[in-house]
Amino acid sequence: MRYITLLALFLSGQLFAADPLPSWNDTAPKQSIVAFVEKVSKEGTPDFVPPAERIAVFDNDGTLWAEQPMYFQLFFAIERIKALAPQHPEWKEKEPFASLLRGDVKAALAGGEHALVQIVMATHAGLTTEEFEKIVSDWAANSKHPKTGKPFTQMVYQPMLELLTYLRANNFKTFIVSGGGIEFMRPWTEKVYGIPPEQVIGSSIKTKFELRDGTPVLARLPELNFIDDKEGKPVAIQQHIGRRPIMAFGNSDGDFQMLEWTTAGKGPRLALIVHHDDAQREYAYDRGSHIGKLEKGLDEAPQRGWSIISMKNDWKNIYP
Amino acid sequence: MRYITLLALFLSGQLFAADPLPSWNDTAPKQSIVAFVEKVSKEGTPDFVPPAERIAVFDNDGTLWAEQPMYFQLFFAIERIKALAPQHPEWKEKEPFASLLRGDVKAALAGGEHALVQIVMATHAGLTTEEFEKIVSDWAANSKHPKTGKPFTQMVYQPMLELLTYLRANNFKTFIVSGGGIEFMRPWTEKVYGIPPEQVIGSSIKTKFELRDGTPVLARLPELNFIDDKEGKPVAIQQHIGRRPIMAFGNSDGDFQMLEWTTAGKGPRLALIVHHDDAQREYAYDRGSHIGKLEKGLDEAPQRGWSIISMKNDWKNIYP
Repeated sequence: MRYITLLALFLSGQLFAADPLPSWNDTAPKQSIVAFVEKVSKEGTPDFVPPAERIAVFDNDGTLWAEQPMYFQLFFAIERIKALAPQHPEWKEKEPFASLLRGDVKAALAGGEHALVQIVMATHAGLTTEEFEKIVSDWAANSKHPKTGKPFTQMVYQPMLELLTYLRANNFKTFIVSGGGIEFMRPWTEKVYGIPPEQVIGSSIKTKFELRDGTPVLARLPELNFIDDKEGKPVAIQQHIGRRPIMAFGNSDGDFQMLEWTTAGKGPRLALIVHHDDAQREYAYDRGSHIGKLEKGLDEAPQRGWSIISMKNDWKNIYP
Repeated sequence: MRYITLLALFLSGQLFAADPLPSWNDTAPKQSIVAFVEKVSKEGTPDFVPPAERIAVFDNDGTLWAEQPMYFQLFFAIERIKALAPQHPEWKEKEPFASLLRGDVKAALAGGEHALVQIVMATHAGLTTEEFEKIVSDWAANSKHPKTGKPFTQMVYQPMLELLTYLRANNFKTFIVSGGGIEFMRPWTEKVYGIPPEQVIGSSIKTKFELRDGTPVLARLPELNFIDDKEGKPVAIQQHIGRRPIMAFGNSDGDFQMLEWTTAGKGPRLALIVHHDDAQREYAYDRGSHIGKLEKGLDEAPQRGWSIISMKNDWKNIYP
């Protein structure tokens, strides 16, 4: 009986530790991640980090899921504009709405930051938090990427999903720290990434507690609360986590300060940048890109000891 | 041998489940807490709540630790004023500092909210987050309550410590949601309550990411960011946790909206109010009090189904 059990285990491969990162090639990024995790987990050594302090932070757009041909949250906003248009006949004459309704995103965004804020406020405010959550959940379940035809929530990177699971198996807490909307991410991050809402940090608008017919609601107001990008990322990390991460993953210069803040801490630290250099399987962009521009990070990574993940060379698979 | 082991276990009481709440009398509050935890933990029943959604929120001042004769954070601020006074000769002539330096707290606070904000900004801003953390840690380690002579961090309620442990053993996540300063609590909550910094929510001032001689710091600015009290508590719960709690504990009307928000959710919910009615062992105050005023909560608890915890009748012990 005992022999049979042993044989069964052997045949099922369970006598050997399974590779926790099968979608990663055995190149420098994977090696540095595994070496780091093993190092901080070894009790009794100077590099040991207690589980409570094993905080890993991840940008979302371009790091955990794709961000081309434009941020997915913008697809969501445009869908909302179209759905709301019948209640807003004035949008037909008013930018940036008029252009969006004609399908001309480029013209709509020509209005720069002001146009973007108008789009966000028209589509993300004026609802309760519960109403907004339902709308985002519906969008996540039903909307598809225009190029691949996959649901947006499947445009996530398989190697990063494996990495999140691997880190949590080693007692890391995994947080998202994204420029995207905090309430735009929370309805689906637990299912897709295994990251619960309290570990999602993002940009936000203000909310207000109100009683409506005696029932308390949180009303989403058309007023910016926080932009979780660049210098904002360390600020938000402190506000939400209250502890400096020991690992950080980003893909654009919007993540630079997060990586800088992470690696300036004492003791073992690891920072990695996902480099979109795979035009065949995903997209190739960095210095010149309007979305996910990566310039300073590429220039300074070597001297700062940050690793660059080449999607082309370091990842066996892109999507699940 | 086996018999001896069994006997030893029997004698040590380990054959019976140990009471997880030994400092609670077997009265209504304890019964309702245990019944609630057992109910939401029973898989396959309509009241079952998945572990990820078992969020319990706790006010701090007056709920987890004492708040008399004044908020402990004010003792901290006064100590800081005294330490900083040599660098601020102008404080000798300037209120509220002059009164505080003379030891007249009442006169200092006569300036109302404006005076309080001045005290907070003078003592909590102008430092980096790391410098502030060290100062708070030193204070927590060395300062003592004027009446009991205990360190402030031992002026915590033993029944609540047991409750926190009991909830976490049943896969609850325990959060602090306090009007106190978020960075004033974080340096000691993990050690004292087992609550890590990322599960501490509080009031805050703004911070700014800066490079000082090439090293990134977060500078604490003399500007309010958020007041985590009354209507602010549900707002902060949404911002930090992103999910409605199923259990809430408070002690004053500053917690009213948090309990209201918690119990307005669908499914099983439990709200309890710690009532300071034990002048002998702690303090007795509610309706008339300047600190921890409890009036609306007392009036409305019965019709809302919120339980009142009588410190006098429901707790066997107060402090550890």
